[in-house]
Amino acid sequence: MEQTSLFEVVMSLYRQRKLPELKTILSQLNPADIANIIENAEGRDAIALFRLLPKELATEAFAYIDSEQQEQLILAFTDRELREVIDELFLDDTVDLIEEMPANIVNRILKNTDPKTRAQINELLAYPDDSAGSLMTPEYVYLKPDMTVEESFAKIRAVGVVKETIYTCYVTEERKLVGVVSLLDLLTASYETVIGDIMDTNVISVNTKDDKEVVATTLAKYDLLAIPVVDGENRMVGIVTVDDAIDVLQDENTEDIEKMAAIVPTDKPYFKTGIFETFLKRIPWLLLLMVSATFTGMIITGFESKLAASVVLTAFIPMLMDTGGNAGGQASVTIIRGLSLGDIEKRDVLRVIWKEIRVAVICGATLAVVNFGKMMLIDKLLLGNSAITVTVAAVVCLTMVVAVFIAKIIGCSLPILAKAIGFDPAVMASPFITTIVDAVTLLAYFMIAQALLHI
Amino acid sequence: MEQTSLFEVVMSLYRQRKLPELKTILSQLNPADIANIIENAEGRDAIALFRLLPKELATEAFAYIDSEQQEQLILAFTDRELREVIDELFLDDTVDLIEEMPANIVNRILKNTDPKTRAQINELLAYPDDSAGSLMTPEYVYLKPDMTVEESFAKIRAVGVVKETIYTCYVTEERKLVGVVSLLDLLTASYETVIGDIMDTNVISVNTKDDKEVVATTLAKYDLLAIPVVDGENRMVGIVTVDDAIDVLQDENTEDIEKMAAIVPTDKPYFKTGIFETFLKRIPWLLLLMVSATFTGMIITGFESKLAASVVLTAFIPMLMDTGGNAGGQASVTIIRGLSLGDIEKRDVLRVIWKEIRVAVICGATLAVVNFGKMMLIDKLLLGNSAITVTVAAVVCLTMVVAVFIAKIIGCSLPILAKAIGFDPAVMASPFITTIVDAVTLLAYFMIAQALLHI
Repeated sequence: MEQTSLFEVVMSLYRQRKLPELKTILSQLNPADIANIIENAEGRDAIALFRLLPKELATEAFAYIDSEQQEQLILAFTDRELREVIDELFLDDTVDLIEEMPANIVNRILKNTDPKTRAQINELLAYPDDSAGSLMTPEYVYLKPDMTVEESFAKIRAVGVVKETIYTCYVTEERKLVGVVSLLDLLTASYETVIGDIMDTNVISVNTKDDKEVVATTLAKYDLLAIPVVDGENRMVGIVTVDDAIDVLQDENTEDIEKMAAIVPTDKPYFKTGIFETFLKRIPWLLLLMVSATFTGMIITGFESKLAASVVLTAFIPMLMDTGGNAGGQASVTIIRGLSLGDIEKRDVLRVIWKEIRVAVICGATLAVVNFGKMMLIDKLLLGNSAITVTVAAVVCLTMVVAVFIAKIIGCSLPILAKAIGFDPAVMASPFITTIVDAVTLLAYFMIAQALLHI
Repeated sequence: MEQTSLFEVVMSLYRQRKLPELKTILSQLNPADIANIIENAEGRDAIALFRLLPKELATEAFAYIDSEQQEQLILAFTDRELREVIDELFLDDTVDLIEEMPANIVNRILKNTDPKTRAQINELLAYPDDSAGSLMTPEYVYLKPDMTVEESFAKIRAVGVVKETIYTCYVTEERKLVGVVSLLDLLTASYETVIGDIMDTNVISVNTKDDKEVVATTLAKYDLLAIPVVDGENRMVGIVTVDDAIDVLQDENTEDIEKMAAIVPTDKPYFKTGIFETFLKRIPWLLLLMVSATFTGMIITGFESKLAASVVLTAFIPMLMDTGGNAGGQASVTIIRGLSLGDIEKRDVLRVIWKEIRVAVICGATLAVVNFGKMMLIDKLLLGNSAITVTVAAVVCLTMVVAVFIAKIIGCSLPILAKAIGFDPAVMASPFITTIVDAVTLLAYFMIAQALLHI
């Protein structure tokens, strides 16, 4: 609500052409809020509002604006405006921008950067997508082990404003990362102290080739504000800051959740994804899972004559399938999340199965007992379904125990198996597990029915 | 793998009683790694290892150790050791610890803190669980608007090491929060500059009563390293730092994922949750969803005689149910995530439904066409199921369109409805949606069959 009214105030001032007041208000806002306003404004209004901003704030806000609106702004920019924005952007943000823009805009951006920056951009663009290298920025503060604290402060004061963080400084020797020193360490040391004496030599770092999820979780695990990125020879090449790590964590969570719900992941917000695009993200799994349901159909067709002899059994197929699916989904999602948080490792597979077996037995038994009571009291007595006998109830309940047992074991082991052979465990979630568990449950149901009901 | 071998090295040195070497190694490690080692060690070994650590490192590591092992350590601590650890812990970590410990240990902790700290702890404990107040720490640096940069540095140097962050300083006047100044601002200003002149008066803050998820998402949105917490009168009472915000985000994501998979959320890692506890987290939803499948059973029973007349229809029940469930699950999970990321608001409900309707029509049509082909080519021709006629295939495909349509609309609207009436949208995910969609799909199936097959 707040957000809307701020936007409305801005637009109303804009429409009344009260530009001095508007300028004052805009200059008071946070870059993230300004980005929100500009994203919501129409094309020509957006560029007009952007031009009302103080230069520094304009660039800061630009980095927060979504790529569609960024593209619109760049199209309206003069070369001079473009150069000003690109000059002030941090390199990792420029690289993100370039990765999202069409070729003609990329060319314009590169044409408007100085040769040194262009070389750095091209270097960063060469790292594979989703790697630490593509996420990092070379804009960090480095010190030498033989510098004094006083010299370090002089350097930080000189270069600080153009660095993404100054709160952690990296100590390098012949470009190799040898230590790390926090600004707090520097502040509490005397001016004559030598960096080599106070630096922490036990540095947590990641490799340029590491996946960006590894970068984010490592940074989070050690509560860092930035994590250094080194190449194969331990040469320092960049840092990833905590704000970017948070974005990675949130994106990875969204991606996992989408995969678990049988959706092809997208990195766009809901309303930014078109109808057809949304369709394309959802239809592959729907088709695959629909076609694989051929097996359940075949199983039912195979037992058709027996089902005809005991039609009452049909009524419990949905409940058995759903319960099996839910039980398997619980196990798989728990394991997928555990794998992604690092609570569970591949080598834990037997421990996991053993735990799930025990949980499955108690769950299955509880469900079976409740279901037996429900069938005899509600379905038979209350609803008067005379076809339900103790034997029929026993068949359903026994199937329930088997279904939950198998569902939990399949649910917990498939994600670990997927990880072991290099797939993303998240696709082994409920919808996938359900399809397998359905078939197994139906088979068990008909076999138990044959044995107990002699059909 | 690395982690294990580090643990093994430590334990092997420990068993050989090579304590000086062990001390040296331990003192080189990060607190988070040490915590890992101590968590994996058995009771008496854990306390012995803990006592080998340099004091400061010991306390830092203590804050990372899980609560079960923390309890074991405290039981083994002398009062003096306990006092040393508690003295060095940041207040928010002490409060977290107290919230996890049994009453006798809480009493011991409070007995071993000085009266001032005890008062602060009790104040923090009074805030509701999951509120900003319960998450914050009062250990921040505050400055006055009339202080100079030089005076500010003197203050930061004096108090910095016992504060959770010094990189953002808060400017207060009569305890009210009036501005914020970063250490970078201070470093790049001259010594005589007055804080009031360089502080940023547009401060992003949260209220003590705000939910911790709001705290974390606000901090993340504005890329802050810490966010100030104020009371109802804008008096500054604490800060929440970015590392704690990350933990909140990850916990909330886990909680959402668990709720979506019909699990009662837990904040313990997989292997720390006992068999019975895991059972208790999973059985409520399994029972509820199982019992609510009574409706699907009733629907099938109601159409029993008609099913007996056209047994071929039974074979497609699982496929129709699963596809409906998957389609609904996709929509609901997308909306739940969008709500939680702030991409979707309650007031967007009509826009969401309109988008889902269009996606549903294309998805339904595609699935129906593919399924018609599949039934005629694979089921009828290839598998030789002669009971499948064009009309039967039409019934199944028409039901498919209806099922997907209804599933998407129920799937997208229920989470928003849940949020509107104050429930957590995450429980409106696949399992819940599936149960409703199953019943609707079956009803549609039998009604369409009656109309087209005249059974």
